[in-house]
Amino acid sequence: MNELLSPRARTLKAYVPGEQPKDMKYIKLNTNENPYPHSPKVDEAVEGVMGRLALYPSAEMEDLRDAIAEDSGLPSRDWVYCGNGSDEVLALAFQAFFGGEEPLLFPDITYSFYPVYCRLYGIEMQEMPLDDALRINFAQYDRPCCGVVFPNPNAPTGIWEDSACIESVLKAHPDHVVLVDEAYTMFSPGSAAGLLTQYPNLAIVRTLSKSHSLAGIRCGYILADPALIQGVAAVKNSFNSYPLDAMTQAGARAAIEDRAHAEKNCARIVATRDRTALMLRKMGFSVCPSQSNFLFVTHPQHDAKKIFDLLREYGILVRHFAAPERIANYLRITVGTDEQMNRVVETLLRML
Amino acid sequence: MNELLSPRARTLKAYVPGEQPKDMKYIKLNTNENPYPHSPKVDEAVEGVMGRLALYPSAEMEDLRDAIAEDSGLPSRDWVYCGNGSDEVLALAFQAFFGGEEPLLFPDITYSFYPVYCRLYGIEMQEMPLDDALRINFAQYDRPCCGVVFPNPNAPTGIWEDSACIESVLKAHPDHVVLVDEAYTMFSPGSAAGLLTQYPNLAIVRTLSKSHSLAGIRCGYILADPALIQGVAAVKNSFNSYPLDAMTQAGARAAIEDRAHAEKNCARIVATRDRTALMLRKMGFSVCPSQSNFLFVTHPQHDAKKIFDLLREYGILVRHFAAPERIANYLRITVGTDEQMNRVVETLLRML
Repeated sequence: MNELLSPRARTLKAYVPGEQPKDMKYIKLNTNENPYPHSPKVDEAVEGVMGRLALYPSAEMEDLRDAIAEDSGLPSRDWVYCGNGSDEVLALAFQAFFGGEEPLLFPDITYSFYPVYCRLYGIEMQEMPLDDALRINFAQYDRPCCGVVFPNPNAPTGIWEDSACIESVLKAHPDHVVLVDEAYTMFSPGSAAGLLTQYPNLAIVRTLSKSHSLAGIRCGYILADPALIQGVAAVKNSFNSYPLDAMTQAGARAAIEDRAHAEKNCARIVATRDRTALMLRKMGFSVCPSQSNFLFVTHPQHDAKKIFDLLREYGILVRHFAAPERIANYLRITVGTDEQMNRVVETLLRML
Repeated sequence: MNELLSPRARTLKAYVPGEQPKDMKYIKLNTNENPYPHSPKVDEAVEGVMGRLALYPSAEMEDLRDAIAEDSGLPSRDWVYCGNGSDEVLALAFQAFFGGEEPLLFPDITYSFYPVYCRLYGIEMQEMPLDDALRINFAQYDRPCCGVVFPNPNAPTGIWEDSACIESVLKAHPDHVVLVDEAYTMFSPGSAAGLLTQYPNLAIVRTLSKSHSLAGIRCGYILADPALIQGVAAVKNSFNSYPLDAMTQAGARAAIEDRAHAEKNCARIVATRDRTALMLRKMGFSVCPSQSNFLFVTHPQHDAKKIFDLLREYGILVRHFAAPERIANYLRITVGTDEQMNRVVETLLRML
């Protein structure tokens, strides 16, 4: 890389973002977007702030944080911080919570950004192998560390773990933060948010991208004890003292307040997911027991990369991860509408 | 700070953002916002993407970067990168360009975030004193360093320096990046953008917050040789692989394309600025020769903090910086409408 760049930048490998085709000719089941539209209240709310865009947005994001606190059953907005998508919030949380000599623990098969943040911020890391059923092996996590992070449901497996598992980790590490990435929580049986007031070392990250059909709005948030939130805010304000843009603050708040709309869409997706999983199993696929808005599948007789390529030829985009080796024969298929999933099943039936 | 926080986070002092009063009862001349509305094309553009918010926004931000490249007279979008406000872009640029043993050089009186970024990212720094007229002393900058950064016009002085000065620094440091922060460039006689294709070590940061009346939209951008842009993108994608939200991408593009609208508003502000400066000088104020959308003023017989407090009582918010000592008796007054500035002058006449 260019000699004008900093030593830090010269060591980074540029990330290649997932495909976002512009021509819309594909059935797009590769980035876990929601197939149903967002709440119409979002449009009204955005329109309502268009006349005030010459002014800086509310630095404290009070209205949005109030709405999230209420939605999450937390005492006040002091338990909430918001960023440009849950990735930004995760990056800030990594800086605020993790570091020092001991490693951060996370599953070996999980959201691929965790090791990227560790490298960027100089955080030691230790990847903990999933068990043979691709589940998190919580017994392993009782070892020296600077913290723990995992998604629940995990990605890309879609497997959800109950609160007892999460509590076991929280109790094993009272002096370190356990960060639970709940990007897919509204497609699962429940959240760890009820544990927040009992465990000052618990932090939860969420996003409006999937459950609230707002991937385009870039809004994620973290829930935690106010002492942890202050740490995240201090990192954020040393990086960029400005908050989410005014349109996103207003739109996200409206979406959060219209919980019924998101719940209805999520319930439809869950029904489609379970119906699709059943059909895929009948075709010989092994399907991870998903509690998210995607299915992680493998077929003992067929090569995943070949299926991926064929589906693409038939106009269906899904996701294939070449690494790690253990999941190289899996595909991650976002759950779309019933019609879209019928197309997937029909196409697979023709192909295989 | 809380023991659960990382060593990094425990050393940070939480930044206190500038006042953003919600009740609108103040004449708000404290954060350099534009008093005129943004282009109506922004509203149309935002409305046009509201139906697509369930999808992730364009990761490469092609349309927005194309528009900026054209507006800036650059060969292609490979010379452009965008972020959530120029603060985010600056933070990414600091990580991409600066580091190592030698210090980053910047003026002792300048944008107060530069030392914050240096502390956050472990970059050595050396503050270079402005001369007695509060101008950047470019002769001093010919010394070992890892790079140079300064705003042009400088903040909070508002003083602009011509391309010859900038070229002297570029030539002194061909192996290091010279980062010119042009947040206020559209209120000044000219930009350094014309030098970009000659100097691969030049990078320029800009924002739509002031000139385009879009502080609420959070869009800033950097212009540089594609090799530098790739470094910024690599840092950005290691931090948060998602781009600006879809509404901001669309709105910012529309604003950039309606350059005539921004130019008209900037010209009005420049006229008001020069008229106001004249009146303030007649009242005994010393006024820095501003080429920005604010005036940096001091009065030999009056205490700046007292004037600040009195103006506030009269419903006018301006900015007072308690530190550094050398500017503690100055006020920074954003240039608003003619009517607002008449109110400032009348109020000062009554008070002093």
